[in-house]
Amino acid sequence: MISNKMKEHVSKSSIIRAMFEEGKRLASIYGEENVFDFSLGNPNVEPPEAIKKAVNEIISEESPNMVHGYMSNSGYEDVRAKIAENINKKYNLKLTENNLVMTCGAAGGLNIIFKTLLNPRDEVITFSPFFGEYENYVDNFGGKLVIVPSDTETFEPDLNALEQSINAKTKAIIINSPNNPTGIIYSEKLIKDLSQLLDKKQEQLGTSIYLISDEPYREIAYDGVKVPYILNYYRNSIVGYSYSKSLSLPGERIGYVVCSSDMDDFKDVMPALNVANRILGFVNAPSLFQRVIAKCLDSSVDMNIYKKNRDLLYNHLVKIGFSCVKPEGAFYLFPKSLIADDVEFAKEAKKFNLLIVPGSSFKCPGHFRLSYCISYDKIEKSLDSFDKLAKKYL
Amino acid sequence: MISNKMKEHVSKSSIIRAMFEEGKRLASIYGEENVFDFSLGNPNVEPPEAIKKAVNEIISEESPNMVHGYMSNSGYEDVRAKIAENINKKYNLKLTENNLVMTCGAAGGLNIIFKTLLNPRDEVITFSPFFGEYENYVDNFGGKLVIVPSDTETFEPDLNALEQSINAKTKAIIINSPNNPTGIIYSEKLIKDLSQLLDKKQEQLGTSIYLISDEPYREIAYDGVKVPYILNYYRNSIVGYSYSKSLSLPGERIGYVVCSSDMDDFKDVMPALNVANRILGFVNAPSLFQRVIAKCLDSSVDMNIYKKNRDLLYNHLVKIGFSCVKPEGAFYLFPKSLIADDVEFAKEAKKFNLLIVPGSSFKCPGHFRLSYCISYDKIEKSLDSFDKLAKKYL
Repeated sequence: MISNKMKEHVSKSSIIRAMFEEGKRLASIYGEENVFDFSLGNPNVEPPEAIKKAVNEIISEESPNMVHGYMSNSGYEDVRAKIAENINKKYNLKLTENNLVMTCGAAGGLNIIFKTLLNPRDEVITFSPFFGEYENYVDNFGGKLVIVPSDTETFEPDLNALEQSINAKTKAIIINSPNNPTGIIYSEKLIKDLSQLLDKKQEQLGTSIYLISDEPYREIAYDGVKVPYILNYYRNSIVGYSYSKSLSLPGERIGYVVCSSDMDDFKDVMPALNVANRILGFVNAPSLFQRVIAKCLDSSVDMNIYKKNRDLLYNHLVKIGFSCVKPEGAFYLFPKSLIADDVEFAKEAKKFNLLIVPGSSFKCPGHFRLSYCISYDKIEKSLDSFDKLAKKYL
Repeated sequence: MISNKMKEHVSKSSIIRAMFEEGKRLASIYGEENVFDFSLGNPNVEPPEAIKKAVNEIISEESPNMVHGYMSNSGYEDVRAKIAENINKKYNLKLTENNLVMTCGAAGGLNIIFKTLLNPRDEVITFSPFFGEYENYVDNFGGKLVIVPSDTETFEPDLNALEQSINAKTKAIIINSPNNPTGIIYSEKLIKDLSQLLDKKQEQLGTSIYLISDEPYREIAYDGVKVPYILNYYRNSIVGYSYSKSLSLPGERIGYVVCSSDMDDFKDVMPALNVANRILGFVNAPSLFQRVIAKCLDSSVDMNIYKKNRDLLYNHLVKIGFSCVKPEGAFYLFPKSLIADDVEFAKEAKKFNLLIVPGSSFKCPGHFRLSYCISYDKIEKSLDSFDKLAKKYL
């Protein structure tokens, strides 16, 4: 008696659950220390000490009815003002609290954005490989996700293919940089070219095309690579941000949506985001953690831990013959699988106690994703298994 | 460029915003202490001291990666087990962690329930007056809310009218007791009769009809009145619970959904609720507060504060000529307005600095709602304004 759509969703997600169960089964046979789980994006780096301090301060000093009570569906005004100020400082903008809505993480943010923008059958374009939930989020509101494949040698979006895919029903483009699953970062040139293309298409079609940037990995960028901020380049820009990774708080569901003041229908979009937060049942982003992050805006986890993991794993895999675009950010590697059938390859990997996610899950077969947000020691210990796996094919 | 549906939602909610702005305007003219805002359901009673203690313990003793990290989309297993045990103790049931999904408050809970159950055009029945968001929550998933009016002399649901409204498209009935906006509590006899009716209709139609109980006010019951637990009476029962009121934590968005093990398709419903939590963007109920409430299951705010408020306000209004069903729970009064046009009546009330919500907002014109979750002193001070308002009409 569950809905037809949910039947599909449940059967798809049972595959992931099966992998999880398989991991537990392997751990029970070989011992947890001998199973190498590269399948989850759950940050292993501890939140900065500032979080604990902020929680303690707020709980002991502020009024509990204020800290745990309702506020505007958009979030506390003072929290939004502080975040706006922090963004302005970093990216030379002039945002205020009125540009922001606090959200239950980036997932909550993307859902209120799509609820706000999409009429049934409107189209949202993304580039493969991509985070599979985009398809669900767009579908929640009757929209259609249109997938434009990227060049798999660089994972740069193919702007010519994008141009062909834009039509009068195109309501938004969603990008994700630093990227899950590839770890690549979109260059300033790319963002400029993309913005120019969207401007041109808007004019041609007489429509508004929103550029949505999903940014849970913004702070995880290595080697000094800059992540361009789309509000500096494109008028119809919306950023969905999350503190899940930058502060290692994924369970707390805290993030925000920020819109450019220059966007089309800004005066309609902001109250609609506020109302969408309410009627989708989020009501507001969790209150204590709104106040906590406002005290930790200049803190972040130690990104060097992730960088060392990347270097260790990337260098080793390339050395033993894997082909992989070197990631500049996030905590994922997306190498080519050593046989075309990536699902089969993931099964083979399991024989060496390696849990990996087939590229098909990101609509990019022939690859696999490794989440290296696990301990350095564990990665070191896993290298032998990768050697054995590679030896079967190379 | 926002969606057509959101245009409607925004214009409706701008009425509420206008009231809020009007309250601020009045406060700036007459002073905040002279404006009597009975419009909001924001608990004014402080959370119990146990909350602070629990936060401090968890933050200082437990691993931050566990406390703030991802867990199952259904919530921490140990938290769900503790809640199940607590429910079992109170209502003599045999629930386990597998009967529960932790949710972002009751609002999040109702949304994952409807996402799980509803195909487009499925019908959900409720009784007026009712919490207006039900219409939005059902509409989020293409369902249709069917409204069965209650007898306005008692606000008891009319089961004959309900029977007429049930058809093959009826997927669920949603009830709310203690009730917003009337404050009434459904008796055991009513729940038994309702269950019997639903059993009969299920058999006649060969369908499953789920009974959903929205229970943010369960603990707010006065004079020893019992609130029957529907899992004890009806097989296809789902309860959406929230700690927003019982622990004064509405901003933290913490609650759960609990399903009867005997329900139809229990084995499909539970994983579907889990997946719905994920794909609607909630992902999981906020992690720290899952752990906090698990330590506070036997705590609650001091309900006597609300009872004193009820007695003061109810007794006075009845004395000066208002007609009102005496509420046995929640923190609302729902008297008849002194003229048929409740919107006009609310405007008149504003002239005496009384902010009240017209019954039309709950699909029950000719009445108005007073939220008495404000301070006793403030209520005392407001009585003079009610006297003046009544004098205009009586």
